[in-house]
Amino acid sequence: MVEIKVGARDAGAYKPSRDDKFSFGLWTVGNSGRDQFGDATRARIDPNDSVKKLAELGAFGISMHDDDLVPYNATPAERDAIVARFARTLADTGMVVSMATTNLFGHPVFKDGAFTSNDRAVRRYAIAKTMRAIDLGAELGAPVYVFWGGREGVEAMASKAPADALERYREAIDFLCGYVIDRGYKMRFAIEPKPNEPRGDTFLPTVGHALAFIGKLEHSGMVGLNPETAHETMSGLSFYHAVAQTLWHDKLFHIDLNGQKIGRYDQDLRFGSEGIKDAFFLVKLLEESGYQGPRHFDAHSYRSEDAQGVWDFAAGCMRTYLILKEKAKRFNVDPEIQAALAEASVSELAEPTVGKYSAAAAAALRGDPGDPDALASRGYRNEHLDQLVMELLMGTR
Amino acid sequence: MVEIKVGARDAGAYKPSRDDKFSFGLWTVGNSGRDQFGDATRARIDPNDSVKKLAELGAFGISMHDDDLVPYNATPAERDAIVARFARTLADTGMVVSMATTNLFGHPVFKDGAFTSNDRAVRRYAIAKTMRAIDLGAELGAPVYVFWGGREGVEAMASKAPADALERYREAIDFLCGYVIDRGYKMRFAIEPKPNEPRGDTFLPTVGHALAFIGKLEHSGMVGLNPETAHETMSGLSFYHAVAQTLWHDKLFHIDLNGQKIGRYDQDLRFGSEGIKDAFFLVKLLEESGYQGPRHFDAHSYRSEDAQGVWDFAAGCMRTYLILKEKAKRFNVDPEIQAALAEASVSELAEPTVGKYSAAAAAALRGDPGDPDALASRGYRNEHLDQLVMELLMGTR
Amino acid sequence: MVEIKVGARDAGAYKPSRDDKFSFGLWTVGNSGRDQFGDATRARIDPNDSVKKLAELGAFGISMHDDDLVPYNATPAERDAIVARFARTLADTGMVVSMATTNLFGHPVFKDGAFTSNDRAVRRYAIAKTMRAIDLGAELGAPVYVFWGGREGVEAMASKAPADALERYREAIDFLCGYVIDRGYKMRFAIEPKPNEPRGDTFLPTVGHALAFIGKLEHSGMVGLNPETAHETMSGLSFYHAVAQTLWHDKLFHIDLNGQKIGRYDQDLRFGSEGIKDAFFLVKLLEESGYQGPRHFDAHSYRSEDAQGVWDFAAGCMRTYLILKEKAKRFNVDPEIQAALAEASVSELAEPTVGKYSAAAAAALRGDPGDPDALASRGYRNEHLDQLVMELLMGTR
Amino acid sequence: MVEIKVGARDAGAYKPSRDDKFSFGLWTVGNSGRDQFGDATRARIDPNDSVKKLAELGAFGISMHDDDLVPYNATPAERDAIVARFARTLADTGMVVSMATTNLFGHPVFKDGAFTSNDRAVRRYAIAKTMRAIDLGAELGAPVYVFWGGREGVEAMASKAPADALERYREAIDFLCGYVIDRGYKMRFAIEPKPNEPRGDTFLPTVGHALAFIGKLEHSGMVGLNPETAHETMSGLSFYHAVAQTLWHDKLFHIDLNGQKIGRYDQDLRFGSEGIKDAFFLVKLLEESGYQGPRHFDAHSYRSEDAQGVWDFAAGCMRTYLILKEKAKRFNVDPEIQAALAEASVSELAEPTVGKYSAAAAAALRGDPGDPDALASRGYRNEHLDQLVMELLMGTR
Repeated sequence: MVEIKVGARDAGAYKPSRDDKFSFGLWTVGNSGRDQFGDATRARIDPNDSVKKLAELGAFGISMHDDDLVPYNATPAERDAIVARFARTLADTGMVVSMATTNLFGHPVFKDGAFTSNDRAVRRYAIAKTMRAIDLGAELGAPVYVFWGGREGVEAMASKAPADALERYREAIDFLCGYVIDRGYKMRFAIEPKPNEPRGDTFLPTVGHALAFIGKLEHSGMVGLNPETAHETMSGLSFYHAVAQTLWHDKLFHIDLNGQKIGRYDQDLRFGSEGIKDAFFLVKLLEESGYQGPRHFDAHSYRSEDAQGVWDFAAGCMRTYLILKEKAKRFNVDPEIQAALAEASVSELAEPTVGKYSAAAAAALRGDPGDPDALASRGYRNEHLDQLVMELLMGTR
Repeated sequence: MVEIKVGARDAGAYKPSRDDKFSFGLWTVGNSGRDQFGDATRARIDPNDSVKKLAELGAFGISMHDDDLVPYNATPAERDAIVARFARTLADTGMVVSMATTNLFGHPVFKDGAFTSNDRAVRRYAIAKTMRAIDLGAELGAPVYVFWGGREGVEAMASKAPADALERYREAIDFLCGYVIDRGYKMRFAIEPKPNEPRGDTFLPTVGHALAFIGKLEHSGMVGLNPETAHETMSGLSFYHAVAQTLWHDKLFHIDLNGQKIGRYDQDLRFGSEGIKDAFFLVKLLEESGYQGPRHFDAHSYRSEDAQGVWDFAAGCMRTYLILKEKAKRFNVDPEIQAALAEASVSELAEPTVGKYSAAAAAALRGDPGDPDALASRGYRNEHLDQLVMELLMGTR
Repeated sequence: MVEIKVGARDAGAYKPSRDDKFSFGLWTVGNSGRDQFGDATRARIDPNDSVKKLAELGAFGISMHDDDLVPYNATPAERDAIVARFARTLADTGMVVSMATTNLFGHPVFKDGAFTSNDRAVRRYAIAKTMRAIDLGAELGAPVYVFWGGREGVEAMASKAPADALERYREAIDFLCGYVIDRGYKMRFAIEPKPNEPRGDTFLPTVGHALAFIGKLEHSGMVGLNPETAHETMSGLSFYHAVAQTLWHDKLFHIDLNGQKIGRYDQDLRFGSEGIKDAFFLVKLLEESGYQGPRHFDAHSYRSEDAQGVWDFAAGCMRTYLILKEKAKRFNVDPEIQAALAEASVSELAEPTVGKYSAAAAAALRGDPGDPDALASRGYRNEHLDQLVMELLMGTR
Repeated sequence: MVEIKVGARDAGAYKPSRDDKFSFGLWTVGNSGRDQFGDATRARIDPNDSVKKLAELGAFGISMHDDDLVPYNATPAERDAIVARFARTLADTGMVVSMATTNLFGHPVFKDGAFTSNDRAVRRYAIAKTMRAIDLGAELGAPVYVFWGGREGVEAMASKAPADALERYREAIDFLCGYVIDRGYKMRFAIEPKPNEPRGDTFLPTVGHALAFIGKLEHSGMVGLNPETAHETMSGLSFYHAVAQTLWHDKLFHIDLNGQKIGRYDQDLRFGSEGIKDAFFLVKLLEESGYQGPRHFDAHSYRSEDAQGVWDFAAGCMRTYLILKEKAKRFNVDPEIQAALAEASVSELAEPTVGKYSAAAAAALRGDPGDPDALASRGYRNEHLDQLVMELLMGTR
């Protein structure tokens, strides 16, 4: 029997620092616990207080919707005072605004969509609000600007021709790219896909659909993705594979990390608290990919929590990331794991199969296709490999 | 109370003809009822008999995997005899081969993948088999060649670097495009995405991921999609929206029609038997999009059926399509539906919101963004619109 | 080609009457359009106005949470005035309160659960609130009292021992049964299962779990179920089968009708707008089962709607039910459908297979088990049968 | 930075022994890798060899379908020889047959169902086959006999009246209970629910539905459940909660352990390889519940594996179970975890809320319901608790 030593094995380890580039949305720690069926369970947190507390915990940045900081109907003077105070807090704490975005979903004006509302006046309002919010983001130094089209969808299929919706979406992004270029802002755009909720079906439902969409934009080079764990996972798709394909297209501009069970409402759980294996491969991929952007948590504390629980949540997201990051390093030096990778011929997949087409190459291959029965006889020992991964994750290796 | 008149209201209507361009895979009517848990319940049907029977029922074409027609280990002489006989049957019946594809999933050699197997020799075999199958497709006049990467995926996440897999996938498609061009075949490629099953997670899991992938191909113009109802629906994504986005990218080269419940094993049910509303909008879209390709059914009869049930199944697919096609016409001339579309401002979504970016347009919009509270006050009457659609579908209008 | 006649084929038909026993929750037509991501899009409707409007549309009853009618913090005098006015409206319109229930989910006190909160004082408050609400329901004549344990669940698995939670659930229901009996109220209880949302996992997640739970109650005879379309469908389970099993246990005390896609957030869509085939078999089952309770709609209008859209929604629920009810009658007299049922041996399933056990019966069966290969040769023509059902649903027969 | 020590931390630990009561189905290690889309990738293993190898690995028992051991059409003499040899292998290895069951799904005769086929002759054959298989199970000493109704369902809803199907199911189980009692076998029955696959919708789809069903059986005391991880998880239900409710009803007679992602085909993955948190709570529950039955693995090796991979798979199932079992012990003595449980008031849920009903208790509670606003102010620190669980699972505490 294994002797049981209790308590944390790693006092002092897994402490986040600025270099880890952890960031949180103001709306995440600021979430009041209101949901579809119940009222707020926690008081609103002043954004300045959120910045201070997150800085203490080891984050390097925050992200925000326009309305998270500046109330929707603030006067210009109020707006400027709020922004000035917030900028001071950032300066005092050394925190940065690592991403900004627009709230195009909360106000009832967006109930039929924002960039894809059937009402042209609503679409114009959405673009105008976004320009204003981009200015705010630029003023606060946000290098990435996110577009989550939460209301860009339908319940009644007949209510929108989807090709028209895609055209209007494209038009809006093209226009706003033009605006950013014209203003000289150093800012890139990142589209955040989601399959459904709050709409029955959303346009650009997955990482794939958004990547394809970007290919048709006028300024496609300045537009990438902001994939989110929960959003891909809702559809049962592998988030790890989705981020890998995003990187393959050079389009990982930002990332939203959280936890989610498949086939449920958008849970936005603490990072790593569901799907730990997918989370592990994701962290490993991010850390080894050269991705330089924020490790951004778009999640919120359970509704059962008070203020203490909010900071438990925030600290837990970062800590789990760091634990998995350490496991990723361990993966790379574990001899049994490396042997299992070899047995599964993993690195052989990086070798070209046949190279660029030529008639000669085709003829050679046709002449010597190989013997399928012989090739079928080997095993790949993927069970062994996966078991080693699970044991790495469970800390027994 | 409504008087009840029983029986078919439309004797003689909804009879398929060649002009409807209905096609079936040889493997669909040829499905023997074998499944994961049980043995075949029906005898294999000779492909020539399938062609004859489908011709009688009103189809215009068939599709096939290489192995559906020619046994995997046939000698060249056997192969030629089989193909010659089949070509005669096609000629006799006036049927065409509207699509061909490769079986890259049945033989155990593909257990770790075909184009993305870790074993380079397996990848080479897969390409060689595909070249041979393309020759067969070309010989039989197939204008579209489909790639379904059923085994291109993983159960153990560690067993493949997804970027390597995408590279090998790309290499294979690029090579095979080269082959088709070199041979002078009049043939386009169509990739068929699927999220999972038989693998735990498949590369190119949705229409979106495949569209994005195509953007990176050498001969991207000759590669499009073959979206399938069941495959998108498994993930809970709207197939109607998926096909609409495919058309928006000019990439609808072929289509696989069937029925499926969300979040289940790949059911391949009779077209229209699940998700009738999505099926209706899909048929309407296809018929109004200018799509000229086959209306191809990739489905099979329930396992409970004998030979008669197979043809019931095939006839039902076509008949439901035609019923929905007629409803699509009715939709367009129904004055209440048209009024409801107007009330929901559906056509207004086709109008540009703001046009191409200019500083002047931006300034104008910033100066006059509109009043969100006023814009929020209108209703869109989407409930009314959707109810009219449901009543159209239920035949009470 | 089919000649197209446009417009409703049935002017005057499908008008609901009191005898149809349609009811709506005050919270359904009263839904303000607030969701997880956005604010209310419609004004609150006065409950008295809802009753009047629903009476006009043909409903016979309403249902309500305590807080739907009486604000949570009303004084006794305010409470009595509100109730008296509401009772007059009911009397004036001839409407009944067909079901009452408690709001045990909106107030933050229930954030950890109500009957299963870890905090005993919260559990006691929940029972006290329910007693008060039962009094209100009894005063207004509600014959059924519903328990939806929306907050009875967890996100953190460690936070509740599930057996303890089931014990506390049982204790609460037993106590409240005692209360109803003691007070002499003519009232039965109906438990409403749901798998998740707003909690990560809910206790009593399906019709099955709740039926089993009832078997352990002290007064199990007075407790039945209130199954809901959306709740079973979220898990991908057949709601038709669930209601059939509920009836088989004599436990269908109430029903919540709406529409839902599998594997999504709780959509509460207009009845019949999704899953029309399941809705059809459900209506047929209800109408033929002898169920005498309300046909209760627990759904709400899309958020895109204004007040007109709310009544469109309510009218649509009832109208679709009546259309399906008429189709159920048609099903029973359609000779082709009846022939297909015979061909599938449907009625043979009502015949005993072997009867009660006896050694003689066992010996006889062992001696003559039948020939499986011969029995396997028949087909069941289920494709034909299902196609006829689809055509009945589409109105072409 | 944490120093990285590579390799297994626990050489020698986590070795299964007979006392751990691990068992495997003959069909699990015997799985040939055949699936819906492809042929077998591995040779069949002789059942005697499976027993020997599993004994070596540390299992205590095996389970089997009748046809796993004795070919469907063996003569009585062949049957007896096979059984005698198998009994010797069991005796030689000290292994037991811990469960037996009937294959009522493989042969085409069951294509419309077994106990619920519309064809009475098929139903009779199914019962006869089960009696014969029960005899085999009894002869080999199996204490539990499992009923998985894999074919008891429908694709075409119209093809079975669900109440008739439940009646026939009940009749069959009642008859077979009678048979077991009559023969004097020491054997209990365990029903195994599953929501779908291979049928579109299965009767008794979840643990809950089966528990309720048992309540209506003639010999309900001798019938319990065999819940399976994959089957509940397919529907997105918590398997941990399902097993807890089964135990609460005293109906956990057997258990099938494996791994599964939500909303997919039946994956039957290696235990613990998906959903590690749910697996942990399950192991903890089993170990602390007093459950004395087998820890039975109903899973199979990936199709990519050869014989070595099969045994990797089997060893991995057991090893992960033991790792989690050790973590469960650690959970109970970890002071921070215990403090977090206290902070969440977990043990308070075991205290009665109000006790048995009395008018006095009701009056007291009505008189002093508590102050909801005050009660709402506390937090439960579930984020902290869950994070500690995750860190226990990841081995950093």
